[in-house]
Amino acid sequence: VSLLTLTRDLRRRKARDRHTRCVVEGVRAVEEVLAAGVTPVGVLLGPDADATPRAQALRDALAARGVPQERVDARDFASAADTDSPQGVLAVVPVPERALADVPTDGPVLLLDAVQDPGNVGTLVRSAAALGAAATIALPGTVDLWNAKTIRSAVGAQFRHLALHAAWDDVAAWLAQRDLPLWGADLTGVPVAEWRPSGPVALALGNEGNGLTPMVAAACTGRVTIPITGAAESLNVAVAGGILLQQLRAVC
Amino acid sequence: VSLLTLTRDLRRRKARDRHTRCVVEGVRAVEEVLAAGVTPVGVLLGPDADATPRAQALRDALAARGVPQERVDARDFASAADTDSPQGVLAVVPVPERALADVPTDGPVLLLDAVQDPGNVGTLVRSAAALGAAATIALPGTVDLWNAKTIRSAVGAQFRHLALHAAWDDVAAWLAQRDLPLWGADLTGVPVAEWRPSGPVALALGNEGNGLTPMVAAACTGRVTIPITGAAESLNVAVAGGILLQQLRAVC
Repeated sequence: VSLLTLTRDLRRRKARDRHTRCVVEGVRAVEEVLAAGVTPVGVLLGPDADATPRAQALRDALAARGVPQERVDARDFASAADTDSPQGVLAVVPVPERALADVPTDGPVLLLDAVQDPGNVGTLVRSAAALGAAATIALPGTVDLWNAKTIRSAVGAQFRHLALHAAWDDVAAWLAQRDLPLWGADLTGVPVAEWRPSGPVALALGNEGNGLTPMVAAACTGRVTIPITGAAESLNVAVAGGILLQQLRAVC
Repeated sequence: VSLLTLTRDLRRRKARDRHTRCVVEGVRAVEEVLAAGVTPVGVLLGPDADATPRAQALRDALAARGVPQERVDARDFASAADTDSPQGVLAVVPVPERALADVPTDGPVLLLDAVQDPGNVGTLVRSAAALGAAATIALPGTVDLWNAKTIRSAVGAQFRHLALHAAWDDVAAWLAQRDLPLWGADLTGVPVAEWRPSGPVALALGNEGNGLTPMVAAACTGRVTIPITGAAESLNVAVAGGILLQQLRAVC
């Protein structure tokens, strides 16, 4: 299979699951992959691949690690890319193998409960990494952590930050085993400015339109809310997640 | 000019400036326009316009206000829409006329200094509205507040929240006249958890890649930072803005 065919195929989640490979688009995100110590299995280069010194430096770094590079024309490149302006670089990268047993509890654990927008999920992973969360667990109904758009929004942070998919039953058992309290972000609850958990917690964020799923909501031991004015209907879930993680960082 | 032609034309910023009209896409955002007391000059309906009870209720509310409705086929509708899934409703809406003189200082004033992504700018406007900012001022180089994507990301919050474009010289004079300290979000500065301004402030957020412009950076009377771990390169600007606005809300 050519790298071009594989890259196109990896636009589908089933193909990513089968190959345990994903596609990382753009110079900054591929830089993050290398910074995480992960080596791409191959890189597809479009006509823009040499457009900037930074892109050229990236190609040199990839060559130094012996990563095969395949040059394609603009049309083939666009056919393989999932985002609008992938800056001439598409890397095929192994999806890191991770399990709940690997998750430390030396920081908050973020649970994404059916968060659907790849931009939101990517931004949440980026914030979780930046603000010291121990891990991000994507529950069923949440968009693929290894989707090209999610990776782009996270600027590749899911390669350094422990982000993984898990089923709710397994997560519930893991929370009980680690004795970790589960806080849910909700429309009512402790106001964020007064929220001062005394130790590590898991924090669940729900779907953009519908909030937490009934199963996760029922398992929450506490609820926290970000009070808002009447001038907006709600906060974006990625902004809400950032505010709640910053509060945990400030008080824990 | 038919509503379809006008809607297509308003995809360009120059046309929006000339007509002082913009296009609001999707059920939730058009609901926000009505909630702000603004009446669309017309509504374009696609084949999905009756897909949900909520969309039907919106159509009834528009009809009750005497808003002309024009039904078009899927192809024409797609040709006028700027976002991918506009849920069958495109409203042509007057851009609110606002000036710096209208801006109160009973809350923080957010300055967007060449923030380029419409999703980021829209999310910032939404957060500013939700977290009690008095206004959001878009400085030159910032994407149009009245772009369909910006409005979509803000879920129409720019109609209730005082968001406007202004030139830097005018804003600098206005800040001086109101005696408002200007804080800049930067990589170094007071850590956000220790940031406790004693009164109203202006808060400047810079470009996604390059930060504050030299002119705005030079005018800042203070700098505030959100400390991050080494696991991510940076925070998303809309998340950073949300965290800083929440801190102001908690301490002011």
